[in-house]
Amino acid sequence: MKPSIPKGTRDFSPNEVAKRKYIFSTIQKVFENFGFQPIETPSFENSSTLMGKYGEEGDRLIFKILNSGDYLRKADANLLGNKESQKLTSQISEKALRYDLTVPFARYVVQHQNEISFPFKRYQMQPVWRADRPQKGRFREFYQCDADVVGSKSLLQEVEFVQLYDAVFSKLKLTGTMIKMNNRKILSGIAEIIGASDKLINFTVALDKLDKIGEEGVVKEMLEKGITEKAIEKVKPLFSFNGSNKEKLAELKGMLAASDEGLNGVSDLEFVVDSIEELGLESAELEIDVTLARGLNYYTGAIFEVSAPKGVKMGSIGGGGRYDDLTGIFGLKDVSGVGISFGLDRIYLVLEELNLFETVDLPQPKVLFLNYNNEQQITVLKALKALRSSNIKCEVYPDVASSNKQQKKQWKYATTRGIEFTVTDIENELFTLKNMNTGDQVSCNLSEMIETLK
Amino acid sequence: MKPSIPKGTRDFSPNEVAKRKYIFSTIQKVFENFGFQPIETPSFENSSTLMGKYGEEGDRLIFKILNSGDYLRKADANLLGNKESQKLTSQISEKALRYDLTVPFARYVVQHQNEISFPFKRYQMQPVWRADRPQKGRFREFYQCDADVVGSKSLLQEVEFVQLYDAVFSKLKLTGTMIKMNNRKILSGIAEIIGASDKLINFTVALDKLDKIGEEGVVKEMLEKGITEKAIEKVKPLFSFNGSNKEKLAELKGMLAASDEGLNGVSDLEFVVDSIEELGLESAELEIDVTLARGLNYYTGAIFEVSAPKGVKMGSIGGGGRYDDLTGIFGLKDVSGVGISFGLDRIYLVLEELNLFETVDLPQPKVLFLNYNNEQQITVLKALKALRSSNIKCEVYPDVASSNKQQKKQWKYATTRGIEFTVTDIENELFTLKNMNTGDQVSCNLSEMIETLK
Repeated sequence: MKPSIPKGTRDFSPNEVAKRKYIFSTIQKVFENFGFQPIETPSFENSSTLMGKYGEEGDRLIFKILNSGDYLRKADANLLGNKESQKLTSQISEKALRYDLTVPFARYVVQHQNEISFPFKRYQMQPVWRADRPQKGRFREFYQCDADVVGSKSLLQEVEFVQLYDAVFSKLKLTGTMIKMNNRKILSGIAEIIGASDKLINFTVALDKLDKIGEEGVVKEMLEKGITEKAIEKVKPLFSFNGSNKEKLAELKGMLAASDEGLNGVSDLEFVVDSIEELGLESAELEIDVTLARGLNYYTGAIFEVSAPKGVKMGSIGGGGRYDDLTGIFGLKDVSGVGISFGLDRIYLVLEELNLFETVDLPQPKVLFLNYNNEQQITVLKALKALRSSNIKCEVYPDVASSNKQQKKQWKYATTRGIEFTVTDIENELFTLKNMNTGDQVSCNLSEMIETLK
Repeated sequence: MKPSIPKGTRDFSPNEVAKRKYIFSTIQKVFENFGFQPIETPSFENSSTLMGKYGEEGDRLIFKILNSGDYLRKADANLLGNKESQKLTSQISEKALRYDLTVPFARYVVQHQNEISFPFKRYQMQPVWRADRPQKGRFREFYQCDADVVGSKSLLQEVEFVQLYDAVFSKLKLTGTMIKMNNRKILSGIAEIIGASDKLINFTVALDKLDKIGEEGVVKEMLEKGITEKAIEKVKPLFSFNGSNKEKLAELKGMLAASDEGLNGVSDLEFVVDSIEELGLESAELEIDVTLARGLNYYTGAIFEVSAPKGVKMGSIGGGGRYDDLTGIFGLKDVSGVGISFGLDRIYLVLEELNLFETVDLPQPKVLFLNYNNEQQITVLKALKALRSSNIKCEVYPDVASSNKQQKKQWKYATTRGIEFTVTDIENELFTLKNMNTGDQVSCNLSEMIETLK
């Protein structure tokens, strides 16, 4: 029976690792260019750090680690007898795998507050684990790449995050991404106007269907959800919300004239839109989207979400926002922050679909020394050493071919792995170097070979 | 109450992450130079893949993951009632965290055997988890960096692994590491000579104390362990085993003349020693060490262990060996392999102790724009954009200083973080650039600033 791996997890082959590293290092370079600094936190945290931070659903999806040793010794006999799984958990498990990077980051900030110079710009690129039902683009082990600034309320950060998204996707040659922005204060303003904040989600969900079911359908759904006709009248400009960002902001200003908080949100967004207009974007587009309600219970200012270029079917490939109280859950009050995240695994799928990995250096050696002759081994080892000193990836086929069949096997090894050059023969310190793509052969000494392969 | 992290785990600050990345990327570059290709496997495996592969002690130290949902539903009521922790585990946990990289690699090779071109040279740098008692240089979450070749018995690999160790430590400027080698077949030969293989471990342990307790003490201990005087006489050359590698090999040849397997091991080592003598090492030394018995139940040929330079107190910083049957446990027979491992966390401690991180680029931005004036924000954002396009790490202090005190805070932020340059003023597109180390100030336009900072 062939061995297997757990549902929702993946092995990565050499080429996959290389492509993933290309995305990681692109994001990392941009993060550092923007002044962000890396931290890393342990894969597992004390359960008390994680539990209760992601809602009931989140608690359920967190992977718990069984205590070591005689873990049942102190467990409540009644809970065991009645098989009360949920209540027993905290008695037999005190650690759990990281569910996201935000809560561990909040824990880190509180724990290390005396070593940190605020505002603290940190990035973190590590795996997280969720016992979710696996599906396309959703795994049980996946990477998040987060950048956050804590300890500042400046809107400059929001401008920089738009630029940062644009810089990463431009470097990945992924043109046409859409950076959508909203502001929680605008949503609160809309809630004021329609008369009840508890209807805000119904409202945004209905509005989001405008493309599919038209204005009539949207109004019908809103009425069904208990939003009054009068309220709908007030926010009607949103139904024809198709102009430029400037036009949208102008509409919002009129619509939210009666809500101070709403106007505040409009002015925040205006600052970002105006700045980005001055600065320009290389490959992405910035779009105001008032239906964006991502993490509504969490974000207090800007809300970001990035979608893949049109035509690529994929959920959001990034998102984030501003939160006024990140670290309050761990006892440190009034630390405002704003952050964004890149979905590494989904970005991978998008780049793959659009053939954007073509230029990635795969980890093949540049040259393979075929091994037909025992007498030449030291010469080969010396040549390999010289090539490696010049940073040329190279290897020798380890076993000497003692038959025609074995020679063919070496040949096949070179072609299957897509190795570009082979050394097929050595005589009097002269190497026969074969270009496997063209079939051309040259005879050269060691330094000539290094020149050719560089 | 301040939050904390689980025993034996660590947070890594920005500077620590940067230094760790420096080690990782050094090892990675050398691995790839030598023709190794990266793979990655999931953090957790099916428990059946891991359990029973590391002995009883290992099974105990593996972190098990609790099943999701109502995990007690199908559990045996008697086991619960009697609190039989050990027997219950497999009923409530079917996944476990990776304990090393070798078993997941063996599983990978078997599962992907039809996609792999053998000999397969793979490297893998990932964390592993062990519920060990934490102590200096031993953690519950730590990284391993492994390179293995499977599907070949060629001794060229052993030579290359010595070179690879030397290349990595040379690049890390860690001179004076000792690469110790032994061969399982020599140990088997000694067992033959002393009359019993079950006494081999007692024998090597006693011999290893030669430095401390002298020949007399060693002989005494051996006799106590039941090794006969006659047997001790036969292996006496090992007591004055202090010459060059060549001299040691000559001694061994004489001593093991009656054991074919022993002579075989000597000849294997001889090939490595002779080749390395021809090729030379840059910073490490190769030493035959017949007391090296690491992984005795596992290795079948070469055995490697690397110790830190003299004067640094630290367990081994690397090790490995040849195994004839890596994948047999998963049903694929006769795949010979040889591999080595780098202990990232220990290498870190050694480099720290020897101040060898001095040249590592820390992830600070090169320049910070102080933020004293609201009117200049777009000019600043434009300058940042231009600097980042030239790959100069930079940032702006996000909040505008509206008081003297706030200006001082920005100043302190720059010095605490060790940022090299600040822009203290902007007028008419001219930037006042201050070198924070020398105190020198220059007034320059954007392109002059880029030139200075590059």
